[in-house]
Amino acid sequence: MKKKTLKITPMGGVGEIGRNMTVYQYAGEYLIVDAGLMFPDSDMPGVDYIIPDISSLLKKRDKIRGIVITHGHEDHIGAIRHIIEDINAPIYATPLTRGLIEVKLARGGLLKKAQLNTVQAGDSVKIGPFQVEFFHVSHSIPDAVGMGITTPAGLVVHTGDYKFDHTPVDNWPTDFTQLSEFSRRGVLALLGDSTNAETPGWTPSEQVVNQGFEQVFSQAKGRILIASFASLISRMQQVVNIAQKYNRKIAFVGTSMIDNAKMARKLGYLEVPEEMVVFLDQALNLPKDKVVLMITGSQGEPNSILGRLSTGRHRQLSIETGDTVVLSSQAIPGNEELVYRTINRLFEYGADVIYENIAPVHVSGHASQEELKLMINLVKPKYLVPVHGELRHLKRHAYLAQQVGIPAENILISSNGQTIEFTNGEASFGEKIPYQAVFVSGSSVGDLSQADVRERDTLAKEGMVVVNLVVDKLHHRVLRKPTYITQGFPAEVDEVLDKASDRIFKVASKANGNLNEKVVEELRSHLRSQTGNTPSVFVNVTEI
Amino acid sequence: MKKKTLKITPMGGVGEIGRNMTVYQYAGEYLIVDAGLMFPDSDMPGVDYIIPDISSLLKKRDKIRGIVITHGHEDHIGAIRHIIEDINAPIYATPLTRGLIEVKLARGGLLKKAQLNTVQAGDSVKIGPFQVEFFHVSHSIPDAVGMGITTPAGLVVHTGDYKFDHTPVDNWPTDFTQLSEFSRRGVLALLGDSTNAETPGWTPSEQVVNQGFEQVFSQAKGRILIASFASLISRMQQVVNIAQKYNRKIAFVGTSMIDNAKMARKLGYLEVPEEMVVFLDQALNLPKDKVVLMITGSQGEPNSILGRLSTGRHRQLSIETGDTVVLSSQAIPGNEELVYRTINRLFEYGADVIYENIAPVHVSGHASQEELKLMINLVKPKYLVPVHGELRHLKRHAYLAQQVGIPAENILISSNGQTIEFTNGEASFGEKIPYQAVFVSGSSVGDLSQADVRERDTLAKEGMVVVNLVVDKLHHRVLRKPTYITQGFPAEVDEVLDKASDRIFKVASKANGNLNEKVVEELRSHLRSQTGNTPSVFVNVTEI
Repeated sequence: MKKKTLKITPMGGVGEIGRNMTVYQYAGEYLIVDAGLMFPDSDMPGVDYIIPDISSLLKKRDKIRGIVITHGHEDHIGAIRHIIEDINAPIYATPLTRGLIEVKLARGGLLKKAQLNTVQAGDSVKIGPFQVEFFHVSHSIPDAVGMGITTPAGLVVHTGDYKFDHTPVDNWPTDFTQLSEFSRRGVLALLGDSTNAETPGWTPSEQVVNQGFEQVFSQAKGRILIASFASLISRMQQVVNIAQKYNRKIAFVGTSMIDNAKMARKLGYLEVPEEMVVFLDQALNLPKDKVVLMITGSQGEPNSILGRLSTGRHRQLSIETGDTVVLSSQAIPGNEELVYRTINRLFEYGADVIYENIAPVHVSGHASQEELKLMINLVKPKYLVPVHGELRHLKRHAYLAQQVGIPAENILISSNGQTIEFTNGEASFGEKIPYQAVFVSGSSVGDLSQADVRERDTLAKEGMVVVNLVVDKLHHRVLRKPTYITQGFPAEVDEVLDKASDRIFKVASKANGNLNEKVVEELRSHLRSQTGNTPSVFVNVTEI
Repeated sequence: MKKKTLKITPMGGVGEIGRNMTVYQYAGEYLIVDAGLMFPDSDMPGVDYIIPDISSLLKKRDKIRGIVITHGHEDHIGAIRHIIEDINAPIYATPLTRGLIEVKLARGGLLKKAQLNTVQAGDSVKIGPFQVEFFHVSHSIPDAVGMGITTPAGLVVHTGDYKFDHTPVDNWPTDFTQLSEFSRRGVLALLGDSTNAETPGWTPSEQVVNQGFEQVFSQAKGRILIASFASLISRMQQVVNIAQKYNRKIAFVGTSMIDNAKMARKLGYLEVPEEMVVFLDQALNLPKDKVVLMITGSQGEPNSILGRLSTGRHRQLSIETGDTVVLSSQAIPGNEELVYRTINRLFEYGADVIYENIAPVHVSGHASQEELKLMINLVKPKYLVPVHGELRHLKRHAYLAQQVGIPAENILISSNGQTIEFTNGEASFGEKIPYQAVFVSGSSVGDLSQADVRERDTLAKEGMVVVNLVVDKLHHRVLRKPTYITQGFPAEVDEVLDKASDRIFKVASKANGNLNEKVVEELRSHLRSQTGNTPSVFVNVTEI
């Protein structure tokens, strides 16, 4: 009997939160699920975002039969614009997800490059050897799906991001029936979202946010500004609903907020009476208690609308006493400092600031512990592959799975690039594909290496000194007093450097083809002893 | 009638978490409460920590009658070693707090410089015009006190850090009786800890940690390593107690952990049977289920014991499968990323990692919302000055105070350097003293300015290019092809720079005394258009 092997390789989002991507391989043909981006850590200066490393896929690009997308959040669609440069496979997405992808691609002039196909939850599509059944899941964005992926090696359920919200904004709960149907057929493996595996209990329904908004709108006497992710279309709907109740007009502010709202309205995912919508300049002329602004910047991003408002850098708009600013969002892990700094600045401008710690103006879109257990009990997989999470989340998901009866040896904690093979119903770890971080910085994609970023981090932590030496071409003797360029140092360091000249003359006179190295060594040790700092030292030698 | 004016100036910890310091002034004489340090934000590269700006006090140093300390945590004592260089006033502290200060000063050889005096909770000490009554508070360290400070202008209650723990580790709850006694006498103002003003309810008792430890110790089959702050003496006692129950020996690992344990045992604040304590090398030879290690590094600090273990850089010790590592601590705000990275690495080494999200192995030492209300109702102050918190915490504390009947106009939200004056029982804002961040970096204190730190941050975010030009002394013509030093850039940038030479020749030929500026401008715009990055550019001109 010929062995039937399904290979699954996480290509992002395993061992980290963000840039989700999974590659399924059967009989030499490939299917990609999701292509997201990830935000950089705080010690990755100059990095805009990080995308999956697809270099190992380039040789196989003709064998990639399709790219299926679970939903329209950045950590699932943010890398599409980059990977379609190299991989020209058809993309499958539900209407709203497709709309969000199109808005992003259009902005980069890349719309023509992408082969976009619309699918609906409930559809079953044959993509190469993969029979993909899309099923609806509730999440913090409408039109999200998970997938049942069937190959001759078995059926795998890929959840994508989900929660079991019984009362979501769009009244469309996760498809329990389809999950049970998969279970009836027998599920080889479950690839499950682990983001909230540390959160006990059950994630509250999106309806809770309505209560938070009710609290805000019933008390606010002035303008209300609500910051959120531009892709949180259901949150937009909630704001529209409450604004309507309290007789306030709404203005969408920020390019992505405006574009997404327009697209979502066009596709019927956002219902706003025409007369409710105003432009920002109109909004500014309305009575303050008759308007709500829906703005970008809930993560405190410096160039977002909220970021600019918090530092007084928006041309048309400024925060004043009496404004109520709502951050309808949760700080992305690692981003807390920036978010709280923004909140403090808004308070300084006199706003009343409402955020998650103060009132229920946001709920998570991810399943908590009891929901993770429910998913496992609904799907009854033989194997569990926890995905979407740092190692601590994957470990916790594994722990929960054991509690509901999955044997420890049937739980496969993988890492980016680490293939899992399923052959005749048995799983094992396979090839480990070389995998690294791909940094996007300005227009450069993947040029900036981890070593470059470490260099930058070191520059910042230690400061920098450039020594300029003019040396005799023949004897390599230092001819003039060295000059210095410093950055990130107090003025006092100039005196310290001035006193180093004698030492440099001495070191240079003894140097033997290693002038550069010797000067660096001497100067670093001099500065360490004199200032307690050890800067990055660079030497420039001009021979005359 | 001569006006009796008490002036209170927050000199740290107001508008931020950390470096707590408050200056009381009456009739030209001064009293300082606490002298703490603060950890830097993630965009302050190269800064070890931040201390209060005492420059405005230097002229008045002969009028400073004393420095009173509430308790021995770093954010209350960490700047003492720096301020005693300039201010030679007697320091008053309870025995354990004094012990912790002495351990720190001894390490810097500064013990002789400090005039240390021991006080006990319940003592009343006349310090200049200030009658200071020390009262016990429960916190996450033993021997913590608050103070009632009486001057002819009235009585101020200064809480320090506190919680209302009815079952603290040392069985010594916050002194309700003394707080009520103050209230009977009439309290002009309350300076209250705001750290947990966003946390609903009541902070759990330290006893909860015993349950967390019970869970860990009853299940662990191998070694147990417990990371915590070295100053958390009561946590040490809890570990000792549970270790004793489970028949494990204890080793203290890390200089500050060892020194503090030794001091606390000597003073009777930590009770450990002599036969229980072993050195690390002995511990490593014991059966794995017979030992617990109490280590430093609960914030993931790279050079702490836990930091080194998580990256395999400890000489004697390494993490192995079967180890249980407990982080008995809470990530300091802004430090979450580092802490979670450490946790993930420990998991990678095969440890079972237990932290706050998983089990109750830590509780906060600060009062939550219901306790803040209780404090106000016990003390019944005329005025509330919320301290110890970012603006968002101070605002929330103010909101809670209004709920329990303090009028909004009697709540004074100040900032570092902003004096509050109390004259004949009425409060108003007074002088705003110039105040800035004082950075400690290596052996340099206060030399590194905010501008320097911004320069470093910019270097890191943008990378750096140095252009070396050799020019004709007379005509300032560029004589040779420019050379470059780059840092934090991919190799590709070298080609881009190479192509810039012609432009630089051109710009230089047109320059008119502003060669440097023109070259920077040209090169930045060239790099921006070619790479999407705009690095810091420095020009070095060698004239020949």
